[in-house]
Amino acid sequence: MRLELDYIAASLESLEETIIQKFIDRAQFMRNQTVYRKGENGFTDGGDYSLLELRMRYHEDMDALFGRFLTPEERPFTANGRKHPARKVTTEHRGLRIEDYNRVNLTKDVWDSYIALIPEICEEGDDGNYGSSVEHDVAALQAISRRIHFGAFYVAESKFLSSPDKYTELIKEGNRDKLLSALTREEIEKQILKRIETKVETIQAMVNTKVRKVIPSRVIMNYYKNTIIPVTKTGEIKYLLMREI
Amino acid sequence: MRLELDYIAASLESLEETIIQKFIDRAQFMRNQTVYRKGENGFTDGGDYSLLELRMRYHEDMDALFGRFLTPEERPFTANGRKHPARKVTTEHRGLRIEDYNRVNLTKDVWDSYIALIPEICEEGDDGNYGSSVEHDVAALQAISRRIHFGAFYVAESKFLSSPDKYTELIKEGNRDKLLSALTREEIEKQILKRIETKVETIQAMVNTKVRKVIPSRVIMNYYKNTIIPVTKTGEIKYLLMREI
Repeated sequence: MRLELDYIAASLESLEETIIQKFIDRAQFMRNQTVYRKGENGFTDGGDYSLLELRMRYHEDMDALFGRFLTPEERPFTANGRKHPARKVTTEHRGLRIEDYNRVNLTKDVWDSYIALIPEICEEGDDGNYGSSVEHDVAALQAISRRIHFGAFYVAESKFLSSPDKYTELIKEGNRDKLLSALTREEIEKQILKRIETKVETIQAMVNTKVRKVIPSRVIMNYYKNTIIPVTKTGEIKYLLMREI
Repeated sequence: MRLELDYIAASLESLEETIIQKFIDRAQFMRNQTVYRKGENGFTDGGDYSLLELRMRYHEDMDALFGRFLTPEERPFTANGRKHPARKVTTEHRGLRIEDYNRVNLTKDVWDSYIALIPEICEEGDDGNYGSSVEHDVAALQAISRRIHFGAFYVAESKFLSSPDKYTELIKEGNRDKLLSALTREEIEKQILKRIETKVETIQAMVNTKVRKVIPSRVIMNYYKNTIIPVTKTGEIKYLLMREI
């Protein structure tokens, strides 16, 4: 893993198209609120989980077997993600100074913010496509989570390495506000938001609106502004405060 | 389900972006040929399956529980997809005249053509990202399969309904060549190929090529030309020859 900040920034940038596409895919179905209601999963032995919770549990059960969660930026949403892989996986050393990646697990923030976003990207109503809705929800949640954790781990480590004395001082002091302001680069954030807006429009430019719902670029831009960027920074602070010296 | 041909065509068109995006996602990893080799799955009890075969089996096991394969255009690649759903699913009547959707199952063609495409969209080599590669392979395979089966079932039924006497005659005669030429509309196929080319370019226009591999539009256009369009027509003929009167 290369820890130069411009390489990390380019990797984060490349996840933008993926996230945008997942939102577009989900938006092709109505809100289908049933899939988010506790217990309304329709399974004979589905317990009190919502259909989305159940789908995520099954998915992470499979993903854990295949070794997904050995990668720092892939953090599990459910306890099923803590199972051991069933295959031999060799992972390169990632250069992070933290033993247990799950000490930085922001999936609860990702989940809650995504559920709150659904009414803004989907048409209100119920079209009965519950299976497809939760399939796309899982894909979107995993894509958002990957972006946020990738940023939290690698941006933080990279910034630390570029000014170790300054960050060591701030970490010792334990002042989150000071860390937050050291990690914040407002011009860069503005650039990201502008780029998101253009990408959402470009990607949807050729869509046939007879059958495809189009998402306003403002909605995804605001999600970046109010969730992805700040939650990533929360994660960066978490990482730095737990960083092993 | 609406069986007007222009609505069906618009639905097929809207699956294009999805397929293109899946190819782009897969292309971010190297070819990783190991994942397609029988027995090289790294699982302690993975048998003679390739890693991709194993991932598809796990995936379809989960998908079957959630009811995916009750939808005509979702045909399973593996026997696991034939399991019964674990949840109550109400499906609308789709207007198709065939009892067992699996009598039109083109997944073997989809699989073989996709594996042959991999060297054209991915960089040659091995980057060790086996888990991510097969995850994206499954997503791509399912997207291609959905497009082909959707076309095979609904385009065929819609064309039958628009000229029932003509098609009843051709079906009785059982002449595949005559059916193929009745189903072929060359101008439309040319339009599709042109549109694919433009979409591949538009979708990738804003990509940061420092970290993102770009796929030549020609490659995806050729895949549509040599696989998606002809295999869909093979499926249409299969459907018509098995259509219940």
